Amino acid sequence: MSNNLKFGACLPVFDSCADRYVLSGYGKKKTLEELFLSASEVEDLRGIELVGNWHINEANFDFVKSLLERTGLEVAMVVPDLWTQGKWGLGSFTSKGPKVRDDAIKEVKKTIDMALALNCNRIDLWFGQDGYDYSFQANFPLAWKQLVEGVQECADYNPNIDICIEYKLKEPRAHLFINSAAKTLLLIERVNRENVGALLDVGHALAAQENTAEAASLLAEEGKLFYVHLNDNYRLWDDDMMVGSVHIIEYLELLYWLKRYKYQGWYTLDIFPYREDGIKAAKESIKWIKGLMCIVEQIGEERIGALIDRGDATEISGVIRTALIK
Amino acid sequence: MSNNLKFGACLPVFDSCADRYVLSGYGKKKTLEELFLSASEVEDLRGIELVGNWHINEANFDFVKSLLERTGLEVAMVVPDLWTQGKWGLGSFTSKGPKVRDDAIKEVKKTIDMALALNCNRIDLWFGQDGYDYSFQANFPLAWKQLVEGVQECADYNPNIDICIEYKLKEPRAHLFINSAAKTLLLIERVNRENVGALLDVGHALAAQENTAEAASLLAEEGKLFYVHLNDNYRLWDDDMMVGSVHIIEYLELLYWLKRYKYQGWYTLDIFPYREDGIKAAKESIKWIKGLMCIVEQIGEERIGALIDRGDATEISGVIRTALIK
Amino acid sequence: MSNNLKFGACLPVFDSCADRYVLSGYGKKKTLEELFLSASEVEDLRGIELVGNWHINEANFDFVKSLLERTGLEVAMVVPDLWTQGKWGLGSFTSKGPKVRDDAIKEVKKTIDMALALNCNRIDLWFGQDGYDYSFQANFPLAWKQLVEGVQECADYNPNIDICIEYKLKEPRAHLFINSAAKTLLLIERVNRENVGALLDVGHALAAQENTAEAASLLAEEGKLFYVHLNDNYRLWDDDMMVGSVHIIEYLELLYWLKRYKYQGWYTLDIFPYREDGIKAAKESIKWIKGLMCIVEQIGEERIGALIDRGDATEISGVIRTALIK
Amino acid sequence: MSNNLKFGACLPVFDSCADRYVLSGYGKKKTLEELFLSASEVEDLRGIELVGNWHINEANFDFVKSLLERTGLEVAMVVPDLWTQGKWGLGSFTSKGPKVRDDAIKEVKKTIDMALALNCNRIDLWFGQDGYDYSFQANFPLAWKQLVEGVQECADYNPNIDICIEYKLKEPRAHLFINSAAKTLLLIERVNRENVGALLDVGHALAAQENTAEAASLLAEEGKLFYVHLNDNYRLWDDDMMVGSVHIIEYLELLYWLKRYKYQGWYTLDIFPYREDGIKAAKESIKWIKGLMCIVEQIGEERIGALIDRGDATEISGVIRTALIK
Repeated sequence: MSNNLKFGACLPVFDSCADRYVLSGYGKKKTLEELFLSASEVEDLRGIELVGNWHINEANFDFVKSLLERTGLEVAMVVPDLWTQGKWGLGSFTSKGPKVRDDAIKEVKKTIDMALALNCNRIDLWFGQDGYDYSFQANFPLAWKQLVEGVQECADYNPNIDICIEYKLKEPRAHLFINSAAKTLLLIERVNRENVGALLDVGHALAAQENTAEAASLLAEEGKLFYVHLNDNYRLWDDDMMVGSVHIIEYLELLYWLKRYKYQGWYTLDIFPYREDGIKAAKESIKWIKGLMCIVEQIGEERIGALIDRGDATEISGVIRTALIK
Repeated sequence: MSNNLKFGACLPVFDSCADRYVLSGYGKKKTLEELFLSASEVEDLRGIELVGNWHINEANFDFVKSLLERTGLEVAMVVPDLWTQGKWGLGSFTSKGPKVRDDAIKEVKKTIDMALALNCNRIDLWFGQDGYDYSFQANFPLAWKQLVEGVQECADYNPNIDICIEYKLKEPRAHLFINSAAKTLLLIERVNRENVGALLDVGHALAAQENTAEAASLLAEEGKLFYVHLNDNYRLWDDDMMVGSVHIIEYLELLYWLKRYKYQGWYTLDIFPYREDGIKAAKESIKWIKGLMCIVEQIGEERIGALIDRGDATEISGVIRTALIK
Repeated sequence: MSNNLKFGACLPVFDSCADRYVLSGYGKKKTLEELFLSASEVEDLRGIELVGNWHINEANFDFVKSLLERTGLEVAMVVPDLWTQGKWGLGSFTSKGPKVRDDAIKEVKKTIDMALALNCNRIDLWFGQDGYDYSFQANFPLAWKQLVEGVQECADYNPNIDICIEYKLKEPRAHLFINSAAKTLLLIERVNRENVGALLDVGHALAAQENTAEAASLLAEEGKLFYVHLNDNYRLWDDDMMVGSVHIIEYLELLYWLKRYKYQGWYTLDIFPYREDGIKAAKESIKWIKGLMCIVEQIGEERIGALIDRGDATEISGVIRTALIK
Repeated sequence: MSNNLKFGACLPVFDSCADRYVLSGYGKKKTLEELFLSASEVEDLRGIELVGNWHINEANFDFVKSLLERTGLEVAMVVPDLWTQGKWGLGSFTSKGPKVRDDAIKEVKKTIDMALALNCNRIDLWFGQDGYDYSFQANFPLAWKQLVEGVQECADYNPNIDICIEYKLKEPRAHLFINSAAKTLLLIERVNRENVGALLDVGHALAAQENTAEAASLLAEEGKLFYVHLNDNYRLWDDDMMVGSVHIIEYLELLYWLKRYKYQGWYTLDIFPYREDGIKAAKESIKWIKGLMCIVEQIGEERIGALIDRGDATEISGVIRTALIK
């Protein structure tokens, strides 16, 4: 059954990843064509994410289209460029400059059009530059208003395209405005549009000290869990590690709740394998997800439901233990 | 001007505080009378908080009343006992046992009556035992429903009493359901009653990796910042230290926004001076708050507003620096 | 093979645990006799820890002895009381009062004698009150000197008794002096006595942001890993949860290195099952440890050694995955 | 008096800083000449740090020398390139490849020669790539041995050059081997060479949950505090913010202890002003340091010593408060 999960991947999974110390990347930079071919090597992988500026723009649109046809990959998500260039450094929708704010909205609309033309009916709004680093630097209510109105304008531009709001505690800004599942849901409710929901990035939830299953439930309960990013970290930072690296038990709980909510969306890998072979890292992550979902299925949804209803920690421990250790 | 702030204190400020290692407390346990007399020694302190079971119950009600009259102290807040006894260990409003849930609601209603009889028109719902420790232990949507309906029932019991929801990331449970300003606001909106708002505990916000000023703004913008607890910590845990210990700059930003929102409520100390003289610790904390508010006033609300509008971190740094270091 | 592990338990595992909110404990307080009987119900459990003041003193010594005989339990460790009473609140070995320092040393010597009389040749020095809460409160070099000289005096008092230094980042003080594996080893080297080594508490290591396997290696490499406490947490705090709750992969790595170093000492549970049945919690934790050690043995020490030598994260992932998920 | 502090700066302070999202940097990249000229604009700034590969190499050596003469700046520190290129991604001194290890040592020796030729008698060994990301990826004792022997070889290459070991909890690797002041001191003692000491980066200490003053004391007490990097952050990550942003009280305590230890070395800014004007950010940071040191001097070293000896938190609070808030 868990074979039916729709697996996707961000393209940095397959590329040479860089950080602020090794700006040229830890490996050999790949061409877009090579990235697509790498993705197509991964069994079970059906979709990819494209980031504006990094992977897609008006100039290479036809080429991207041809790569999709050639590889048979779908576009799982398109991400407007609101955070890959210095011009967004002090904010996109919440920039103090009206010109930048306008450009940001335009960028999103342009991306919506491109997504549609790529047969993808969703985009990811990650407000990675919308926040602040220092005290007294942000006008909180104004920023909130700008986010609400900006997202509304984008949502109304094409109601057939789903807008997925992705939250994160910090990075690149020291504080981001949209930093938790609850704040994301608040924003979604203020925006109040059918086609606006949330993107839950597991690593972002972990680093925000959330329990990922609870975050998923909060969003899914309102029909607003639109999309999921999978990865792992040590809870201090968005390490973007392979699935299966650290949080096995919490992943089991998350997968159970996704199943319980009948989540049908993408399971997209957002890992940065700086020092690993990206193809192998993607394969491993997918095998972990499938394997953990199998554990959930072996224990059984009903039995887990009963465990939760009783909430007896030692009973739960025994069930998980015997499922993992034969 | 900052002399007008209404200062309150929780009673553990003046008592011998205990922890899980020194259960008998680090000092000499005081009688309730001694706690009131201690509080009355602190200049500028006008109100105290009373916790059900710990400080107030039906049996000692008249005695408490006489102590209030004798010391001239007001009751700033009454806190229903939903977390001081083992019976709440697996939850109050979200307990899996219907009897415990009923008892919890009854406890709140009883406390509402007592608060009223003490001329205090607010109570603090802190769901410190409502959460979970282990994966697969919580039914998230059910707990959320129980919280919403439970708070509604309490709010409707007496609409003249304000209900202040206090959030915290963890402790005593490893995960609490109501754990951030945003989630608190979501709950408040679901409850949808005029008399339900939030209690912002600065230390809880810090330990939840929030910027306290932003948390205050989120709540105040909706008219839902009902009450404030002041203390400090190192951001890992609710250390309940004296104000002025660590987060000077963030406190300045918080006080500015409280002023900007014309917050007229209590500034209540929630510190646990395990190893300090509580009276001195309270005096110091109040002097810090007044002093920091003076700094805000010296710089000037308008000037700070302009700083925020520009958001230039180096300009801000210079203004703060010259205000603190002559 | 892993059946040969020597399992121990701290006595709070079986008692009603308390915290600063529920000072009377979440369950029914047990007598010492009941604690021993509870411990004796746990299969594979051979030893217990006794904390001075809490569990053992001159007055009840003979009774403790009779309980040991009756239950067949060994004393795995005796812990001098340097942290269970208010008098230690501002430090034991590093107190600013010479009388308190003397008392602390005397307490340790008395405990050494008792340990010997209980056929236990080790004590645990946990400096839980030796640290500071506020800036400018500690004289760092003086405290260090006092710790070194104090431990030397205790070590010389009876060289047949091993002294195990237990480190922790914080709690009950906001900062503890002996807060990491490396600092513990530094202290051990300054003390420079054969019979002084370290106690590695897994939860303390996790909360100190250490990788527990690396901490174990640092100490074992110098022959200074004398004793191990097992539990789990969410890395923010010493939650003292059951083994198997969160850090499965890191536990596998730790157990591998303990095996590699031929660690023959105790595997002692230091969990606080506030809301769980302690006997069941102990049984579960032991089953997890044995099960995880079996996984290590199934993969094979040699094969893991080769994996480490190559350090290929995707290869490692596959091996762990197929060991846990059939 | 505090005018005598020797201020230095890393060159990224003045450059367009980049991160993994904005790889081209948030501003306009400057030439090396422009970086020097920017540095020379900052009053009180006497020295700069040069990173191998980024700023200095055999090809541009003479040009660097001419820039030094032209601007009158000293070289405060040279940093061998052990972390700016993909080839170091899996370690430098602890790489599993002997060729990489050899190259790393050679790089250091080459840098030692260059430092000498630039009249700078110290280099900074930051093992930013020496660590691990995943469990079972590191051979801890082997890595430790390689670090000890590698540093010994470098130290012996030219005993007139001081080698400053810089520690950090994480980044770029998820775990770094040399991650705390105590572990650094252990390494230094194993290396056992006069010319090997530590570099204390305040932000690294904060993110490692250390109290910076205690870290400084631990190192200075052994004569091993060779160099200091100044910046600030929110304790979760190496945000590299301006001094004066967050940790005012802890900075006061640090500066007091540096004064008490008669630290005569560099006070070097290691900030990454991604979105700020670097010249202004440097000026502000220096003014904060000087201002905070003035506060220390105003209170008086003797008086602070007495405060520490008493350790009364409320008394300390009052002294700090009245020094900052007039």
